[in-house]
Amino acid sequence: METRNIRVGVVGLGLMGSSIVASLLIAGHDVVAISPLPDELDASANRIQSHLSHIEASGLLNGSKEGYREHFTLSADYRQLADCGLVLECVTEVSEIKKSVYRQIEGNIHPEAIIATNTSAIPISVLQKSLRHPERFLGAHWAEPSYLTRFMEITCGEKTVLKHAEWLFELAHEWGKEPTLLKKDLRGFVTNRLMYAVYREAFHLEKEGVASFEDMDKAFRYDAGSWMTLMGVFRRMDFTGLSDYEEIFKNVFPKLCNDKEIPGIMQIMVRDKAKGTQNLHGLYSYTEEEARKWDEAFARFNTDIYKLAAQYPLNKLI
Amino acid sequence: METRNIRVGVVGLGLMGSSIVASLLIAGHDVVAISPLPDELDASANRIQSHLSHIEASGLLNGSKEGYREHFTLSADYRQLADCGLVLECVTEVSEIKKSVYRQIEGNIHPEAIIATNTSAIPISVLQKSLRHPERFLGAHWAEPSYLTRFMEITCGEKTVLKHAEWLFELAHEWGKEPTLLKKDLRGFVTNRLMYAVYREAFHLEKEGVASFEDMDKAFRYDAGSWMTLMGVFRRMDFTGLSDYEEIFKNVFPKLCNDKEIPGIMQIMVRDKAKGTQNLHGLYSYTEEEARKWDEAFARFNTDIYKLAAQYPLNKLI
Repeated sequence: METRNIRVGVVGLGLMGSSIVASLLIAGHDVVAISPLPDELDASANRIQSHLSHIEASGLLNGSKEGYREHFTLSADYRQLADCGLVLECVTEVSEIKKSVYRQIEGNIHPEAIIATNTSAIPISVLQKSLRHPERFLGAHWAEPSYLTRFMEITCGEKTVLKHAEWLFELAHEWGKEPTLLKKDLRGFVTNRLMYAVYREAFHLEKEGVASFEDMDKAFRYDAGSWMTLMGVFRRMDFTGLSDYEEIFKNVFPKLCNDKEIPGIMQIMVRDKAKGTQNLHGLYSYTEEEARKWDEAFARFNTDIYKLAAQYPLNKLI
Repeated sequence: METRNIRVGVVGLGLMGSSIVASLLIAGHDVVAISPLPDELDASANRIQSHLSHIEASGLLNGSKEGYREHFTLSADYRQLADCGLVLECVTEVSEIKKSVYRQIEGNIHPEAIIATNTSAIPISVLQKSLRHPERFLGAHWAEPSYLTRFMEITCGEKTVLKHAEWLFELAHEWGKEPTLLKKDLRGFVTNRLMYAVYREAFHLEKEGVASFEDMDKAFRYDAGSWMTLMGVFRRMDFTGLSDYEEIFKNVFPKLCNDKEIPGIMQIMVRDKAKGTQNLHGLYSYTEEEARKWDEAFARFNTDIYKLAAQYPLNKLI
């Protein structure tokens, strides 16, 4: 199946779905955006426009914002998906809702069209069970904001036919991604999975009074942050000479935290309904002014780091 | 003790020590640089000049390179340390050598002068045992290149008097650092410790065939790398709403790797004397051309990310 010029459907137009619509439009696709929820459908038109404005302000827009209108259909009607070669599902992380959405999608698309879910919580192999054609179903996990991140995790379920994943892998490069292709379904996805190993150790160190949240954030901002975006984990090891690690692994691995339990402070956060910057109460506390500053800083930083990373493409280094 | 205008000694002028000398000079200190090794002493003069040239090229130099000459003493003679208020030890990671260096330093400085070690391998509490005045001894762990990183880990040993650590913590801010102050000695330091948790999980995922080194490097470069330098670990959790993590911790913590053993591939690397980009053989393999490109890219990226991070100082966000 060809990749360029296919029509792409997006089902579910919340924060992530709307941002993905904008990404696909600037990548040159005709996009059919579907939400069965009237409120979400109403809100999404503005959200998508606002993303296109942000993309324009970041200097990443080819052509004019208005030019995308003719390539864009917004609807509550699944039948509009009829000519799509690919449909991205971005609805809420509830299995039963996703399953009913898949029935609607499968009832309206060609048998050979691909369906990809943006889930980061439910295993692909589990969702796949409810599909009539599970072999054409896979995960395509985007990072936010989707048009300012090169990350994309393409994940096969047990029944996914690999060639479909490879096709999407190729297509994702045309969207400006540097995708990863996981041939086995993984609970937690790669970055998340690796970050959970960090969380487990970090909450342990805080509980033991060794380091504060602030200390660990500084360490990651200024130390890991100074090479992470260029090298990742393993190339960094190679770059620092590699040979010292064995001895340190031998000393440190036995000391790392192996807890299975949820850290006590996270239980307190849940009890207190803490939602971080969203309700000013989290692992840190925030004033409204501070929460707004973090929002603004993140929006600006994302553009900056995206442009910086673009100066160091992997294919110029290997 | 006042912080500004104190004379600072640096003992050990290898790669790290030379770079630290340059950092202290541009921070405005008189610096006494000591190496008892004739070859190292010879090489260090050029190294320090080369660092100052790099600092100048990065636009971070106040005044002229030549102006620093009168603030700089290079010697094999420990007696030159007599008037230093702080001495930074940067010699090789061998306890016996460090102990003999501490004897030389303590024999030549004022009783109230502070001694800090740049070790990342030996616990402060262990090194401290060999000192006549252990209360004035602590860890000050720099990241490389020392003048282009805000990271510094100040670590107390069991016998360190906290006020000395607090004094150094204050001084480090004048060097442009955002230091962390660890009141308890930790095997592996904070970033390293958290990264070892990543390594353990990452080697496990590779062994299980879930994700390749390349996949995981991409995930860290483009996903974690897109927020790490701005937020660190815990603020990122707050920023993403915090409340979903408990459920995911509950699911994922029991699945994380708890191995104590060194990963098989690391044992192979050690057997094969792999030193990464340094001898073109590591977790990846490299041509000479590629290794050179990574060197150049890292030098350039460091300056870029340092300047980018400087646009998001923590005190403007909280």
